[in-house]
Amino acid sequence: MMLLVRQIVAPAVMALAATTAIAQDKPEWATSKWGDDDQIGAANLMTPERVLDAVGLVTDGKVYSLGMIVGADTPAFPPRTLSVTVLQPNQVSNSGLGSNKFTYNDDIFMGWLGIGPQIDGLGHAGIDHVYYRGLTDADFAKASGLTELGLEKLPGLVGRGVLIDMAKFYGVDMVEEGTAYTADDIKAAAEQQGVELREGDVVLFNSNWMDLLDGADPDPLRFGSAEPGVGVSGAEYLAEIGVMAVGADTWGMEVVPAEEEGVAFRAHQIFQPQNGIYILENLDTRALADDGVHEFLFVLGQARIKGAVQMIINPIAIR
Amino acid sequence: MMLLVRQIVAPAVMALAATTAIAQDKPEWATSKWGDDDQIGAANLMTPERVLDAVGLVTDGKVYSLGMIVGADTPAFPPRTLSVTVLQPNQVSNSGLGSNKFTYNDDIFMGWLGIGPQIDGLGHAGIDHVYYRGLTDADFAKASGLTELGLEKLPGLVGRGVLIDMAKFYGVDMVEEGTAYTADDIKAAAEQQGVELREGDVVLFNSNWMDLLDGADPDPLRFGSAEPGVGVSGAEYLAEIGVMAVGADTWGMEVVPAEEEGVAFRAHQIFQPQNGIYILENLDTRALADDGVHEFLFVLGQARIKGAVQMIINPIAIR
Amino acid sequence: MMLLVRQIVAPAVMALAATTAIAQDKPEWATSKWGDDDQIGAANLMTPERVLDAVGLVTDGKVYSLGMIVGADTPAFPPRTLSVTVLQPNQVSNSGLGSNKFTYNDDIFMGWLGIGPQIDGLGHAGIDHVYYRGLTDADFAKASGLTELGLEKLPGLVGRGVLIDMAKFYGVDMVEEGTAYTADDIKAAAEQQGVELREGDVVLFNSNWMDLLDGADPDPLRFGSAEPGVGVSGAEYLAEIGVMAVGADTWGMEVVPAEEEGVAFRAHQIFQPQNGIYILENLDTRALADDGVHEFLFVLGQARIKGAVQMIINPIAIR
Amino acid sequence: MMLLVRQIVAPAVMALAATTAIAQDKPEWATSKWGDDDQIGAANLMTPERVLDAVGLVTDGKVYSLGMIVGADTPAFPPRTLSVTVLQPNQVSNSGLGSNKFTYNDDIFMGWLGIGPQIDGLGHAGIDHVYYRGLTDADFAKASGLTELGLEKLPGLVGRGVLIDMAKFYGVDMVEEGTAYTADDIKAAAEQQGVELREGDVVLFNSNWMDLLDGADPDPLRFGSAEPGVGVSGAEYLAEIGVMAVGADTWGMEVVPAEEEGVAFRAHQIFQPQNGIYILENLDTRALADDGVHEFLFVLGQARIKGAVQMIINPIAIR
Repeated sequence: MMLLVRQIVAPAVMALAATTAIAQDKPEWATSKWGDDDQIGAANLMTPERVLDAVGLVTDGKVYSLGMIVGADTPAFPPRTLSVTVLQPNQVSNSGLGSNKFTYNDDIFMGWLGIGPQIDGLGHAGIDHVYYRGLTDADFAKASGLTELGLEKLPGLVGRGVLIDMAKFYGVDMVEEGTAYTADDIKAAAEQQGVELREGDVVLFNSNWMDLLDGADPDPLRFGSAEPGVGVSGAEYLAEIGVMAVGADTWGMEVVPAEEEGVAFRAHQIFQPQNGIYILENLDTRALADDGVHEFLFVLGQARIKGAVQMIINPIAIR
Repeated sequence: MMLLVRQIVAPAVMALAATTAIAQDKPEWATSKWGDDDQIGAANLMTPERVLDAVGLVTDGKVYSLGMIVGADTPAFPPRTLSVTVLQPNQVSNSGLGSNKFTYNDDIFMGWLGIGPQIDGLGHAGIDHVYYRGLTDADFAKASGLTELGLEKLPGLVGRGVLIDMAKFYGVDMVEEGTAYTADDIKAAAEQQGVELREGDVVLFNSNWMDLLDGADPDPLRFGSAEPGVGVSGAEYLAEIGVMAVGADTWGMEVVPAEEEGVAFRAHQIFQPQNGIYILENLDTRALADDGVHEFLFVLGQARIKGAVQMIINPIAIR
Repeated sequence: MMLLVRQIVAPAVMALAATTAIAQDKPEWATSKWGDDDQIGAANLMTPERVLDAVGLVTDGKVYSLGMIVGADTPAFPPRTLSVTVLQPNQVSNSGLGSNKFTYNDDIFMGWLGIGPQIDGLGHAGIDHVYYRGLTDADFAKASGLTELGLEKLPGLVGRGVLIDMAKFYGVDMVEEGTAYTADDIKAAAEQQGVELREGDVVLFNSNWMDLLDGADPDPLRFGSAEPGVGVSGAEYLAEIGVMAVGADTWGMEVVPAEEEGVAFRAHQIFQPQNGIYILENLDTRALADDGVHEFLFVLGQARIKGAVQMIINPIAIR
Repeated sequence: MMLLVRQIVAPAVMALAATTAIAQDKPEWATSKWGDDDQIGAANLMTPERVLDAVGLVTDGKVYSLGMIVGADTPAFPPRTLSVTVLQPNQVSNSGLGSNKFTYNDDIFMGWLGIGPQIDGLGHAGIDHVYYRGLTDADFAKASGLTELGLEKLPGLVGRGVLIDMAKFYGVDMVEEGTAYTADDIKAAAEQQGVELREGDVVLFNSNWMDLLDGADPDPLRFGSAEPGVGVSGAEYLAEIGVMAVGADTWGMEVVPAEEEGVAFRAHQIFQPQNGIYILENLDTRALADDGVHEFLFVLGQARIKGAVQMIINPIAIR
């Protein structure tokens, strides 16, 4: 009964919070095409027709697991960390539960959800504290969890996956950090690779950047210090097409350092607050690229944890 | 540099650990048909042929999100708990990063991975401290994570999903706790519902038990105290068929209390240590049942966290 | 080596943060009498002379443990929670380390440090994001820990403890919520109880409020909803005297609801940002009050965790 | 109300646990001189007379903070880790609570309690899963917290502190790893330093080992790999005297590697399960040693967290 109490400590004091919130005019860009109460943005594009079309891309039954393996040593944006602890609750000097001696391992996770392969929910990225639909932190980003745009609202992402192999396009083993995928580059690469970008797509970019983690000559420091990725014109182009999600094999999806000095994660802002598009990071796209796969069925079912902003994921590609 | 040190504190002492491990003969049941080094058990059944067949079941492009929403108030096996905290690192009295004012929400998870919709990896359930392939705790269940059978080894589960609606079979709105799905019941229900069980299937059972959480008359206490589910003969039958995974819309998948007094989670033991079959819990199968869907494409991509035993999941069904 | 990398991910991006911090004039009240670089505020008053005087108050050798017992069911300001998990790392099916069979229990804490008996470090309470010495959040309150005013800077608090028994003063078994200890009340109570307040004191107030947690008729909901405590004039009076710390047997030390409608934790602001005085909460002062002890040696050694704002404590009183 | 439910999930199953506990005869050494229900062992020696005597040792009013500063980079016994995160709940784009604009920093701790300066409660060290008073893991070491011997049972430790400076005794700047403090060494060092060891004392050993962390030439790797410390005869001698606690300026208090090959932490076993004596680790005793202080008032008030095994501490010495 005590646990319940925690929810009501100092209710009168807590109620004061809203009175001093800073009023902000809703910026023009903050109107969602999916309505004032929308919770899932571009996931509204996940229609049965598009899903059927994507299923139709499967030809071989080959499954690709796009989530890189993540652990305590995975480079992460500071101060993010994670740890997993395995334990055997109450079983240390006995044979477990019941006459059938049921023993079991359990595990505890302590850490941040934005590590390794991850989805950025629509509550992640903002412009000066204004988020998708013009929501401000005070509106929805409560310490106990997002009250809007939480990842529990998203059923998952199923659709046509498109892989654009930028390493192949640039003719390199691995794309260099600071290389911005411009609108022109993306168009040219898609054309080179015989694939068309469409509304509702999940577009993934391959750079072989993950070779820095597990390749012949690992350099995690370089991996984490910068990266190639989507540039501003590229982001605007993808938003114009109306894709559902954009992913990459880097920790931040977009080019770092940014094309313009002093700018940070501008593509995140174009995708999320301004267009309701999901971002997927640290996806291992190398097997798809190696197989020359450019279209596939993309299926992501992220854990639906109430109020969560991000989630560690493992999207499945099937071709 | 200090962080590195933590890994090597007292190496000489740590090295003593193995010398006192209790030797155990490998039980006869502990030989895996997939070999002595196998890490993924029945997921070996995930062949391109079976995946293609499963993809062929999609007729409408309708997507079902099977992961129930999970939060701090989700009933859990004690002492499991979880919490999510949303924060805005270093942004409280500024406009974030860069001239473009990049602000963002992040989140921290503290808790157990075996809460809500979950996959039990093959390192979860054992018989008197002996697990799949005859591994003992001392062999693989380290405090810092499983060294074998961790969920990072599993690429995901893709295959033919089969839903058996036990509520429909028994002719009730919700199946009562203590109801064991016997081999005969499962066969009869499958026949009634026109669906055949095959090797490599992901078999899900619907009981409408989740109505106790979000139905007209919620009773979470009853939800957590017991449950209907797979019985011993039912488990043996499914193992004989050679299914890949068994799931249900209850917290423990199998019948509680058990059919025989003093027995605990016997079906878990039949599936996991004895047959390498995955267990899926707390899946919301009601929408599939309501639509009368009995065959579908099942896609699960669980987060591949190194050393993890269980994982909160959201499998996707497509028909 | 990977762990090290985490510290340097995206250094160029992180460096952008400071450029957009909002400039703020340092308020007049924000000048500390202990200098511009001071880290410990009123703990500067902990001189050998005062310590010797406090030691001189010990007459009987009786020890009082002022830290209430704290657990997962302790009422807390939302969304604060805590949990403790006990485990036996790597010992489940063996006899531990070495030929001498060393086995051991360990424990994990997940949660907030501001629960139960606690010290509020000088980085805790602010006025519109301005803290002690005029520091703003951007200056020192980093997500990875306070860079100034962290509790690791404080060696501890040792001094003359004074107990003022407000229940006795008001002639009640337990002081009612909403009762503000005014300057006049505090003076009168001190006089009634024959104790003088002096610079450098640790002043504790007893209300018997904890009877709501463990008394004959527990009411944790009432405990957490409001409380008696220090009022604004009381806080100003104590600050004027120049006490080192103020503590109470309530979750928030000061009166809730506040004396003036729409005001929250004003005494916290008077003590911390404006005067560098420490706050101690949820101290069980009942045994001191029962024994009629009004002066004693007060010794607090809080764990010195780098960057921590608050800490769960157990101060010791000796008379 | 849901939170309550968590406590009762599967009660019938949980009740099965005890039935398969392995019966063990209580070893002869496991009889406590403080009775079959004792919870605090040698802390029973904390009598008013001894406390008064200890207070009488204070001559100068000088305060020593013995808890070393602990953070994410503090070397720890694997897999122990810790992190602190500072956040400003619900304040990111507003001015906090109330018309007085109350803003505040809070902090979250994720990690193990056995890091840095710590007290080992009597539930920490065992001999083949048997602990103080003959308790086995199954008796008291529940995953949700110790049901006996938890640190909430201990009011604190107050008594006569004795510092034995082993660096001075051996005539070295820093004592080498592997140096065992034998009974003879301890007697001789005490005699050299003019201090007598008595029943109920808190005995601390100084080796200057912490110079490896913050000295001119830091070597945290060496710090964590081994250490000087109490040897077996030394531990037996201290237990025979009947001290209340033994502490040191090393991570494990006792000599590593052990005097006898293949032995691990034998002094822990002599102190804790066999004699109910508390162990204190990672105490920074250098300032006491530098000042030539050998007797002092020792005051430890550890946080009283229900069910906790260990706790991060900051004992205060006053002379």
